[in-house]
Amino acid sequence: MPTISKKGQLMPESPIRKLVPYAEKAAKDGKQIYHLNIGQPDIKTPEVALQAVKENTVEILSYSRSEGSETYREKLAKYYDRNKISVSPKDIVVTTGASEAIAFIFGSIMDVDDEVIICEPFYANYIAFATAASIKVVPIVSNIEDNFALPAIEEFEKLITPKTKAIMICNPGNPTGCLYSEKEVKQLADIVKRHDLFLISDEVYREFTYDGNSHFSILELEGLDEHTIMIDSVSKRYSMCGARVGCLVTKNENVRHTVLKFAQARLSPPTYAQIASEAALNTPQSYFEDVKNKYIKRRDTLISELNKIDKVKVATPKGAFYCIVELPVKNADHFAQWLLESFDVDNETVMVAPASGFYSTPGIGINQIRIAYVLNRRSLVKAVNIIKKALKVYKD
Amino acid sequence: MPTISKKGQLMPESPIRKLVPYAEKAAKDGKQIYHLNIGQPDIKTPEVALQAVKENTVEILSYSRSEGSETYREKLAKYYDRNKISVSPKDIVVTTGASEAIAFIFGSIMDVDDEVIICEPFYANYIAFATAASIKVVPIVSNIEDNFALPAIEEFEKLITPKTKAIMICNPGNPTGCLYSEKEVKQLADIVKRHDLFLISDEVYREFTYDGNSHFSILELEGLDEHTIMIDSVSKRYSMCGARVGCLVTKNENVRHTVLKFAQARLSPPTYAQIASEAALNTPQSYFEDVKNKYIKRRDTLISELNKIDKVKVATPKGAFYCIVELPVKNADHFAQWLLESFDVDNETVMVAPASGFYSTPGIGINQIRIAYVLNRRSLVKAVNIIKKALKVYKD
Repeated sequence: MPTISKKGQLMPESPIRKLVPYAEKAAKDGKQIYHLNIGQPDIKTPEVALQAVKENTVEILSYSRSEGSETYREKLAKYYDRNKISVSPKDIVVTTGASEAIAFIFGSIMDVDDEVIICEPFYANYIAFATAASIKVVPIVSNIEDNFALPAIEEFEKLITPKTKAIMICNPGNPTGCLYSEKEVKQLADIVKRHDLFLISDEVYREFTYDGNSHFSILELEGLDEHTIMIDSVSKRYSMCGARVGCLVTKNENVRHTVLKFAQARLSPPTYAQIASEAALNTPQSYFEDVKNKYIKRRDTLISELNKIDKVKVATPKGAFYCIVELPVKNADHFAQWLLESFDVDNETVMVAPASGFYSTPGIGINQIRIAYVLNRRSLVKAVNIIKKALKVYKD
Repeated sequence: MPTISKKGQLMPESPIRKLVPYAEKAAKDGKQIYHLNIGQPDIKTPEVALQAVKENTVEILSYSRSEGSETYREKLAKYYDRNKISVSPKDIVVTTGASEAIAFIFGSIMDVDDEVIICEPFYANYIAFATAASIKVVPIVSNIEDNFALPAIEEFEKLITPKTKAIMICNPGNPTGCLYSEKEVKQLADIVKRHDLFLISDEVYREFTYDGNSHFSILELEGLDEHTIMIDSVSKRYSMCGARVGCLVTKNENVRHTVLKFAQARLSPPTYAQIASEAALNTPQSYFEDVKNKYIKRRDTLISELNKIDKVKVATPKGAFYCIVELPVKNADHFAQWLLESFDVDNETVMVAPASGFYSTPGIGINQIRIAYVLNRRSLVKAVNIIKKALKVYKD
């Protein structure tokens, strides 16, 4: 019988996915589940985007350009301009979700066994794309104690080898909610320049920054045009996760030319979703203000409720809509499973994401979970209350 | 300055792409161009699919399931059943175009430097996906003289090494229009069983078979469930190239489980396009009959016109909507460029695909082109007439 590849065996299965059968069983048994486990917002997609698709006049649903439609890229460049990021349409390659942008970047700048340094905990699928490309993620640990701030520059330098091709950040961060300051981003700029590396920044949560902090993009760095590659997506910004439209933006022409060869191989990004994405750029500013206010209130509620629980540690997120929570348990994977399998309060329970999938250093983060505050405040209060009661009776 | 990867440098740029600037220049100069160069049909997408998207009631455009929506996979299984292919919904993983299916399969069954044997000439992007996965395409030459029939089994066996993991076919074939008989497919079955290989078949042109020949899918092979992986797409069947919805179908559970890990990493296929694809399954049979009749008439016109040209050799396609044409020129890449740059008949010219991009054996196919008969018959006659006149004055 023919066998699958070593790479295929190495492809990680996320701890969240492992919980799905337990969640399905719980739902089947009539339990109500609060889903704090995924970054699928409950926010409505902007009407202007939905409407554009309903009113589309396509008669032959043909390929678009491999780099994305001309009109979408033009309007997208203007959006960046409004966000203090000066780019031209030609700097943009539209991708099928940020996911594809990651795959194209890894393929374009890294060969087998090359290394990318990523702050840990990180978005779990970075590891999957690295595995698919046969490259290595070198983790650099950030800590809940200092709100997952950027690790010291010396720590990065200790990890740089001849195989290191890039440093990659997610800013604002999934799963930490950290927001790197202009100063921190400039420290990274300094390193990548000194060591001749690429700096990759996943900025899909750009709009979601709180407490008066504003986002500083790597594309705002001066003199770094040959080093910086930014990843973006419409998924979170417009609650359009199902569109599957992202992009990568770089002023490095070599990188763009190479990425385009990858893009041409898969022909084009999805046409209907580009229609929605282009229209979404006309979303009124009030939409974002409403959404942001909603997330701030949710975050404040969530953090204040979590802080009421004994021996629970939580980092206050400054951006995105996640937080990492340290629990007084030995193994959060098991705790998360137990919540679904064996616990309920008035027939209600909670699904959380064990943080182990966001770490690659063995043994770190195993008592942590990630909570996505994508539910309304009443649900958040109820969900945290369930966790509180669960911790009282849970035995490791 | 940081550099791009060796892999990125190796990614092929197709000869068609290289022609694009010349085509743009010609168009700008006011020349009318007959596009015989790409497989983008001029056929209208079925109304039922277009309408479903216009009438969609999505309010939050959320992720779908990584393996594709439940309802789409159920209906798709029934479609296969109607086509003598017995599969269950769980055997199907919906992908973002057939392109993504290829990438997932290569990743799931092959490691760095592993080999896949593919009949040459082949769809050019196979090489790109192989390059992206750091694996090797081993070409086995088929010939215009015998209508690109399957090479002899001994020829395949000569190429099998310990690194060989799979044999891959495109049936009906792009770029050749060949259609492998049940007997030929069974010969392949025999080989892959004997050598413990996978058999991958790209069957996106299933509906397009002519002259009373019917398509025989690798999934109809008995006792081969662990070996066979079928690739499919809505792009050509429903003239929905811009949807970006494909799938892979296999009864090998290990492969499916591994593919699903790749699928989960990229979250989900596009939602709107799945709505269109599901609705497209209700396309009336008369649509396909009309389309097929159209292609048969076009093919007959094209072949008969081409055969009127001195020293031109053409294989009669039994399926798909392409044919390979051998021209009395030394270098078809140059001829194709010259058509755009320096030739016209009453200000009209033709864009063809040089066949060199469909071969990886050096020096083969350089006097061939691929013609996609995706235009109406009047245009095809005009286009071939332009080629005929061009060959009279063209100097190598």
